[in-house]
Amino acid sequence: MKTYLDCYPCFLRQALEASRTVGTTEAQQYQLVKQVLQELLQLDTDCTPPEIAQTIHRLVRTQMGVDDPYARLKALSTERALALYPRIEALVQEADDPITCAVRQAIAGNVIDFAQADTANRVDDLWASVQETLRQPFAVDHVHALAEALDASSEVLFLGDNAGETVFDRLLIETLDVPTRYVVKGEPIINDATAADAREAGLDRVAEIVSNGSDAPGTLLSDCLPAFVQTFHSAPLIIAKGQANYETLSNTPAPIFFLLKVKCPVIAKDMDLAVGSVVCKRSEAYVERPRSIQRSI
Amino acid sequence: MKTYLDCYPCFLRQALEASRTVGTTEAQQYQLVKQVLQELLQLDTDCTPPEIAQTIHRLVRTQMGVDDPYARLKALSTERALALYPRIEALVQEADDPITCAVRQAIAGNVIDFAQADTANRVDDLWASVQETLRQPFAVDHVHALAEALDASSEVLFLGDNAGETVFDRLLIETLDVPTRYVVKGEPIINDATAADAREAGLDRVAEIVSNGSDAPGTLLSDCLPAFVQTFHSAPLIIAKGQANYETLSNTPAPIFFLLKVKCPVIAKDMDLAVGSVVCKRSEAYVERPRSIQRSI
Repeated sequence: MKTYLDCYPCFLRQALEASRTVGTTEAQQYQLVKQVLQELLQLDTDCTPPEIAQTIHRLVRTQMGVDDPYARLKALSTERALALYPRIEALVQEADDPITCAVRQAIAGNVIDFAQADTANRVDDLWASVQETLRQPFAVDHVHALAEALDASSEVLFLGDNAGETVFDRLLIETLDVPTRYVVKGEPIINDATAADAREAGLDRVAEIVSNGSDAPGTLLSDCLPAFVQTFHSAPLIIAKGQANYETLSNTPAPIFFLLKVKCPVIAKDMDLAVGSVVCKRSEAYVERPRSIQRSI
Repeated sequence: MKTYLDCYPCFLRQALEASRTVGTTEAQQYQLVKQVLQELLQLDTDCTPPEIAQTIHRLVRTQMGVDDPYARLKALSTERALALYPRIEALVQEADDPITCAVRQAIAGNVIDFAQADTANRVDDLWASVQETLRQPFAVDHVHALAEALDASSEVLFLGDNAGETVFDRLLIETLDVPTRYVVKGEPIINDATAADAREAGLDRVAEIVSNGSDAPGTLLSDCLPAFVQTFHSAPLIIAKGQANYETLSNTPAPIFFLLKVKCPVIAKDMDLAVGSVVCKRSEAYVERPRSIQRSI
């Protein structure tokens, strides 16, 4: 049995925060909290954190009668990140090693995550948060291996994460200059980017935006559209952003590089890293795709 | 209706941490979490945080079959704090204003609080945590009013908080040099000091140790022994340590000074202060005791 008991308090907090973002009354919040407690009681013991999140946030959306509780915060995050674009672009242009610099920026953008506590403060002072992450040494640095894989690859499947972070991903995609499909969620879940959020960040100018059809965080392949699953299984190279993609794909045999900032103790323990770590990690379940599959894309 | 919904995730986390401190299996932790979820579902909407804590931690102790889950951590905290005693005592002896210095130290000792996340780290490097708090300016500074009240008072009722913090309280009591009764919990609750914990800190050398008879954090007068309640209501001056004493007594008409470090957002909001604030606050419900009551002690 592997239960993610540490996630239970966290999801209870998330539900409460989500309901407050849409301006609920205290009585409504109380009803929601009771329903979340009921839902947590009924969870299967082998439910993973992204599955729990999917269940809880579906409940939040239904109970609040709001399709996208984080819509305003997502728009604000994208706006704030776009305002920084000239600055982060200049950093990459001036860098001795533009790919490493752009990878760092893409990880720095991962601080925008409303699943975590206190994110509002980080978005309020996004530039300071980004600079702080840019100064950190990598806890896992597989950037060189990523650059080699990029050289050998005809295209990239880029699994996005949060709105706002999308802007930093756009800079990385521009820098890599390899044909890219940018994967977004099929329905709103926390502040994860949907197709509309990705377009607001200008990702349609640099990549083909593809929906995975799911409303779970990360990439729960069992919950994704068959067409997306096929794309996933034939992709020659996958860049996966954020904790939830790591949680859902770290054991999946595929050519994945994970780019993320470690933000919670559960992931930190799993990765044997400290909270706050900056990570560019070649998957331990990395497999190169045979050429025949690559050609079929 | 005033529900403390933000406390629900926190108490779920506390229960999990408490069960882990006594080395439970994951299956036992899972059973406990389910019971805590049930308990939270059944809470009255007007339950205050100390009442919730009392309910949840009683459940933890019963379920785990352990009277005092924090016994080892309390002993360790006291041991670490005692090791610092010569240093903190020297700081007070060298201070231009010994009372302010000792009040600051007593508040600094309030960082030892296993109800909060990440306390183990703070205890591991207690001296650094203490020094950090000593450098902070007061967010509320009623030390002068406290000193005046002490001059006019024949004795002090000192409501203690956590084990280890007791050592810092001992230094304050020695510095004040006014006859003092030091109040501890009747039964273990989180890492709050019981009579045995207070004796380990050497408090019996500087004060009369008095039990309030309760296993709730803070001072829930309705749950305390009648003899203690009488002592409370006739005390000429009360010093109350920590958040839980503030939560339970901030509206009680009594001659109270609260010494605490603000450690959670719920208290911060109530006090209109930032998390991390250092506070020496004369109660807004402060009332001086008539002399006839003072004489009856």
